[in-house]
Amino acid sequence: MSRIAVTEKIVTTKVSKGLKWEDVAKKVGQSKEWTTALCLGQMTATPAQAKVLGKIFGLSAEEQKWLQVVPYKGSLPTSVPTDPLIYRFYELVSVYGTTFKELIHEEFGDGIMSAIDFKMDMKRQADPNGDRVNIVMSGKFLPYKQY
Amino acid sequence: MSRIAVTEKIVTTKVSKGLKWEDVAKKVGQSKEWTTALCLGQMTATPAQAKVLGKIFGLSAEEQKWLQVVPYKGSLPTSVPTDPLIYRFYELVSVYGTTFKELIHEEFGDGIMSAIDFKMDMKRQADPNGDRVNIVMSGKFLPYKQY
Amino acid sequence: MSRIAVTEKIVTTKVSKGLKWEDVAKKVGQSKEWTTALCLGQMTATPAQAKVLGKIFGLSAEEQKWLQVVPYKGSLPTSVPTDPLIYRFYELVSVYGTTFKELIHEEFGDGIMSAIDFKMDMKRQADPNGDRVNIVMSGKFLPYKQY
Amino acid sequence: MSRIAVTEKIVTTKVSKGLKWEDVAKKVGQSKEWTTALCLGQMTATPAQAKVLGKIFGLSAEEQKWLQVVPYKGSLPTSVPTDPLIYRFYELVSVYGTTFKELIHEEFGDGIMSAIDFKMDMKRQADPNGDRVNIVMSGKFLPYKQY
Amino acid sequence: MSRIAVTEKIVTTKVSKGLKWEDVAKKVGQSKEWTTALCLGQMTATPAQAKVLGKIFGLSAEEQKWLQVVPYKGSLPTSVPTDPLIYRFYELVSVYGTTFKELIHEEFGDGIMSAIDFKMDMKRQADPNGDRVNIVMSGKFLPYKQY
Amino acid sequence: MSRIAVTEKIVTTKVSKGLKWEDVAKKVGQSKEWTTALCLGQMTATPAQAKVLGKIFGLSAEEQKWLQVVPYKGSLPTSVPTDPLIYRFYELVSVYGTTFKELIHEEFGDGIMSAIDFKMDMKRQADPNGDRVNIVMSGKFLPYKQY
Amino acid sequence: MSRIAVTEKIVTTKVSKGLKWEDVAKKVGQSKEWTTALCLGQMTATPAQAKVLGKIFGLSAEEQKWLQVVPYKGSLPTSVPTDPLIYRFYELVSVYGTTFKELIHEEFGDGIMSAIDFKMDMKRQADPNGDRVNIVMSGKFLPYKQY
Amino acid sequence: MSRIAVTEKIVTTKVSKGLKWEDVAKKVGQSKEWTTALCLGQMTATPAQAKVLGKIFGLSAEEQKWLQVVPYKGSLPTSVPTDPLIYRFYELVSVYGTTFKELIHEEFGDGIMSAIDFKMDMKRQADPNGDRVNIVMSGKFLPYKQY
Amino acid sequence: MSRIAVTEKIVTTKVSKGLKWEDVAKKVGQSKEWTTALCLGQMTATPAQAKVLGKIFGLSAEEQKWLQVVPYKGSLPTSVPTDPLIYRFYELVSVYGTTFKELIHEEFGDGIMSAIDFKMDMKRQADPNGDRVNIVMSGKFLPYKQY
Amino acid sequence: MSRIAVTEKIVTTKVSKGLKWEDVAKKVGQSKEWTTALCLGQMTATPAQAKVLGKIFGLSAEEQKWLQVVPYKGSLPTSVPTDPLIYRFYELVSVYGTTFKELIHEEFGDGIMSAIDFKMDMKRQADPNGDRVNIVMSGKFLPYKQY
Repeated sequence: MSRIAVTEKIVTTKVSKGLKWEDVAKKVGQSKEWTTALCLGQMTATPAQAKVLGKIFGLSAEEQKWLQVVPYKGSLPTSVPTDPLIYRFYELVSVYGTTFKELIHEEFGDGIMSAIDFKMDMKRQADPNGDRVNIVMSGKFLPYKQY
Repeated sequence: MSRIAVTEKIVTTKVSKGLKWEDVAKKVGQSKEWTTALCLGQMTATPAQAKVLGKIFGLSAEEQKWLQVVPYKGSLPTSVPTDPLIYRFYELVSVYGTTFKELIHEEFGDGIMSAIDFKMDMKRQADPNGDRVNIVMSGKFLPYKQY
Repeated sequence: MSRIAVTEKIVTTKVSKGLKWEDVAKKVGQSKEWTTALCLGQMTATPAQAKVLGKIFGLSAEEQKWLQVVPYKGSLPTSVPTDPLIYRFYELVSVYGTTFKELIHEEFGDGIMSAIDFKMDMKRQADPNGDRVNIVMSGKFLPYKQY
Repeated sequence: MSRIAVTEKIVTTKVSKGLKWEDVAKKVGQSKEWTTALCLGQMTATPAQAKVLGKIFGLSAEEQKWLQVVPYKGSLPTSVPTDPLIYRFYELVSVYGTTFKELIHEEFGDGIMSAIDFKMDMKRQADPNGDRVNIVMSGKFLPYKQY
Repeated sequence: MSRIAVTEKIVTTKVSKGLKWEDVAKKVGQSKEWTTALCLGQMTATPAQAKVLGKIFGLSAEEQKWLQVVPYKGSLPTSVPTDPLIYRFYELVSVYGTTFKELIHEEFGDGIMSAIDFKMDMKRQADPNGDRVNIVMSGKFLPYKQY
Repeated sequence: MSRIAVTEKIVTTKVSKGLKWEDVAKKVGQSKEWTTALCLGQMTATPAQAKVLGKIFGLSAEEQKWLQVVPYKGSLPTSVPTDPLIYRFYELVSVYGTTFKELIHEEFGDGIMSAIDFKMDMKRQADPNGDRVNIVMSGKFLPYKQY
Repeated sequence: MSRIAVTEKIVTTKVSKGLKWEDVAKKVGQSKEWTTALCLGQMTATPAQAKVLGKIFGLSAEEQKWLQVVPYKGSLPTSVPTDPLIYRFYELVSVYGTTFKELIHEEFGDGIMSAIDFKMDMKRQADPNGDRVNIVMSGKFLPYKQY
Repeated sequence: MSRIAVTEKIVTTKVSKGLKWEDVAKKVGQSKEWTTALCLGQMTATPAQAKVLGKIFGLSAEEQKWLQVVPYKGSLPTSVPTDPLIYRFYELVSVYGTTFKELIHEEFGDGIMSAIDFKMDMKRQADPNGDRVNIVMSGKFLPYKQY
Repeated sequence: MSRIAVTEKIVTTKVSKGLKWEDVAKKVGQSKEWTTALCLGQMTATPAQAKVLGKIFGLSAEEQKWLQVVPYKGSLPTSVPTDPLIYRFYELVSVYGTTFKELIHEEFGDGIMSAIDFKMDMKRQADPNGDRVNIVMSGKFLPYKQY
Repeated sequence: MSRIAVTEKIVTTKVSKGLKWEDVAKKVGQSKEWTTALCLGQMTATPAQAKVLGKIFGLSAEEQKWLQVVPYKGSLPTSVPTDPLIYRFYELVSVYGTTFKELIHEEFGDGIMSAIDFKMDMKRQADPNGDRVNIVMSGKFLPYKQY
């Protein structure tokens, strides 16, 4: 058994039961973004969270333990994603990568935006020309230090 | 001559004159995000914008013309970026890619967030535990249609 | 279970029953292009369409549910396709890619042809020198906007 | 000197003179699709065509000779294109590749659509929901023969 | 079931029964080159040929149907083959690729040698310094046309 | 200076003087296949051959010396060639690679066809359905020996 | 001009003057590890540090400005380094990567060792069996947070 | 059976029993770094160590034998690791690779730090600004010799 | 069944029985180098050798037949090997590749050292500073011929 | 200036003067293998050796200094070499890689053959069936140690 097997069971159960990530997140008591990433094998659960997920998805005690093991992260099968939705995010990195770099350095100096001390919120933004996806990212700035 | 040569001239002039992207953007009359991407060879200028940039960066008439030519986009030298700041964005796509996918589909159905009808705002978010980088992305949802 | 398993079952059943995509499409009530892409795991079915496909290919209720889940898209095993028929399309992108770019920008300005708000029609074109494959593609032009 | 140098000269001259591919094509007497591909270093000119292009772009006799040499084809710097417009065509191959294959084989049997005995026509298609790019491709079907 | 499974069954049966491709080809009534490629999952059989192969390799009716389905072609596990015998052919393309190009263009103009309307004959060539492999390839020349 | 520079000079001179490989080969006294490969930087000349080529292409004494140095071989810029003519040869290796392997082993046992003790002859084959490219390859069989 | 040009000038001057990184670092007033990384184009200088380096390496005012611009980081020409000394470090990541992961998670929980809030000290460790390279790395642990 | 199967069994058992690498290491009598690498399939056990591990993880006699077979090393599924914790180590090699090289050569001359005659110690370093990961590496310097 | 399955059975049996390649080779009557390569799926056995191996490793008649089939060669899972022992050989090719080339051409002219008509002997070389691995390779020189 | 420029000058001078590596090596006082690798930019010279090479190849004082700087090693432009002579060595690693591994471990236990404490001797081996290339490699065995 492995974390991947648990992820597959969660995904399969979600389809057969017709669950929604948003509802799962409410029961877990965290945001839908973090909770979905947890269920897809990218984050680590507390024992209590694992128990909640165990109830929702019918996971055994051992499967719940795997949710508490830090996973080998990275959710994509290829380094350049083929799925059109995910590719658009990759394209943003490709087209705007140097822009991100210039503007963050201009504001903060040398360093990075943390992808660890990080949170994100995704929601629908009503628009008469067609609704929009709105994503707010917030990551701590970490300065390179001299030593 | 090519757009790449113009980009290099802009970047070099910016360093020697000690300019800031934010100030360049104000003169161009657009956001700092779009303007920086334009200067880095990813977007296309109107004749008026090219003239403004021409004044700021000392560009010839022909160099200004190149700013009005749609560039071959993609700002990174490798498909997986080596620069730590840019890599963190790639890592977000890698770790959260399937989460983006699940949540957008849950909210909107099959389709994508456009990276073309897209805008972005990046700013400093004061925080007692260390300031944060705050990025708001807004992209039109485009549904796959049946035919 | 996963969408891939459903795709394999569809393909296997098609071979053993000797079905034609065109006939499947008529029953589904959509074009043969979109319907084939759906059956090959690239598009998403409505419940009614899933039911029709379920009858044709003998799919269980759960398998029909998978047809309604947005799939991870990309139908090729390698980034440069090895199959000669598919490679010819890749070659068109390689040889004519910059031509596509120049002419669409010349006509429309900076932007792209959508691969999402897109449809396609493929048919036989009789020709005394050997019949031809005729493909008509139609994708919405999406302009890059300044912000 | 090489064909690449001639291509660069043509592209640079086009920008500085503000020419349009469509007008170039009319003078050459061929379609805008083929003529653009020729100018971008993918096709081979006759002596008469080279002369016409020589006049338009100010090419020397030797540069005109290079236009008559069959070029090493392939117009993209990476096997997966980074430019968003060109990538959408790559994505069509990725998402619809197996669909192309199934439908052409269903209609014609084993073989390919030629990318050599091939022509293409791209035009604007007016649409109240936003104009569309319309592309008609026509390639001879070439059957695999048994021997 | 899939074509790959049928290929594996054919290969396994050939080993256990000690068959020769040349004898298989005689029964199929085609050349040993085409017949071997068919058995290795690269070509498409007629119903009659599938029946003959079914008898030789003990294939079920469904397995015979798979032989009549156009396969996803490409017989190698890596883009640069590791097997020394196959690599030598890759090396010929690498070392002589530009020579092939120059000489075919010199003789025929711009175009290609078809790999579809193609046949091949491989035989032993006796030689006092060690016998040689003799391969005769014949592919239709396909000219690029202007349009 | 390097062999690559000499190759470029030869190719450039050939275009400007309008020479043919076949005529060059006759003066060198070898086949057009080997001579073209030599001129394209893949083979090694004798002093006499270098002198002949020096006269034809206007090469200095030092450039002639470079023709006598064994070059770093491999004539293609990418491991999978993008040029359509050369790609077809790659495709033959991909589609027929395992067939080559099976038939050569069936006839000769374990070993390879040498790509070193190798020669090749390419010619036009008249055909009412369109002329064909005819290539005859002959390579010494080299058996793997046990030790 | 670019940062890469400044790096090359520094490296060339270091060779011609026979300087040592350790001495450069003393004048800069930082560790030899950080200072070397700065000189090799991976870190960002303060104006005062740039001035010191300017004196040592004979850099112009503009070159000193480039030292203060955050560079595009990543010092290796290939994703798997070919240089034997650097490869050994890559090999440590390859062989011990999962061990690093297990032990840091066992001690700290889910998170990473920062490569930004990081310092390093490298020194000679005398040893009768042959002196050893001793490297002490210290990176802040950054926990993944739930949100 | 293979070493990989044994590794998977060890990892699975560790999760289900809730074991710690540090405790396993104490029983084996070696450091936690080496012991974890051994358990993850990168090092080779003595018969006595295999017996100890066999008791801890419930391994059969044959599974214990596999622990004594030198494994095919390399613990990562991709050449650039996707897991954020492991990637940071890769990033250190990328950013500091040339610095490692310069400083080791400055101190020792031409040669490498051995990754074989190597040991490592990883521990928590308390810090008021957030605890740190402290890693001490020690590898024998191996000089290139002239011959 | 396939050759790979036979290789796995041989390797597994070797571990469980505690056999040595050197002893296997003596029974086969060939060198330990060739025999090990045979057992690892890289060489082809005679019927008599297959019988001997069948007895040693408990192989069925069909498994023995597979040993007599020429295998698809190449023993490594990645093009750049991750295993440290094997990587060192790759590193020798990387560092000394051009040296091999220069010296063999200096001695023999244009051509190669055959990897087919090749043999190798590996043995321990006692040395007071630590024993050494001694490898003697002998490959027939094959000259490129003009034609 | 860089080491690469010095290497190119050495190679160019060698061709124009018609020198032999073997004679260069004699003057340097080291083996032809090590000396050639030095001249090709893979090894590091002492001041005295640099002076000798400076005289032979007409190198300036600064160029001689570069010969004393440890180079970034790896002599091949691609990770899988295209040159047939060098590829044969790569092929040996590919075909015999696991054999090297098994036999060295069988004789020495876990560890590697050093590619640093390494020497090599290449010579012609007369043979009535065609002369052979004989290479003797000797590398210190380095055992993995437990800690």
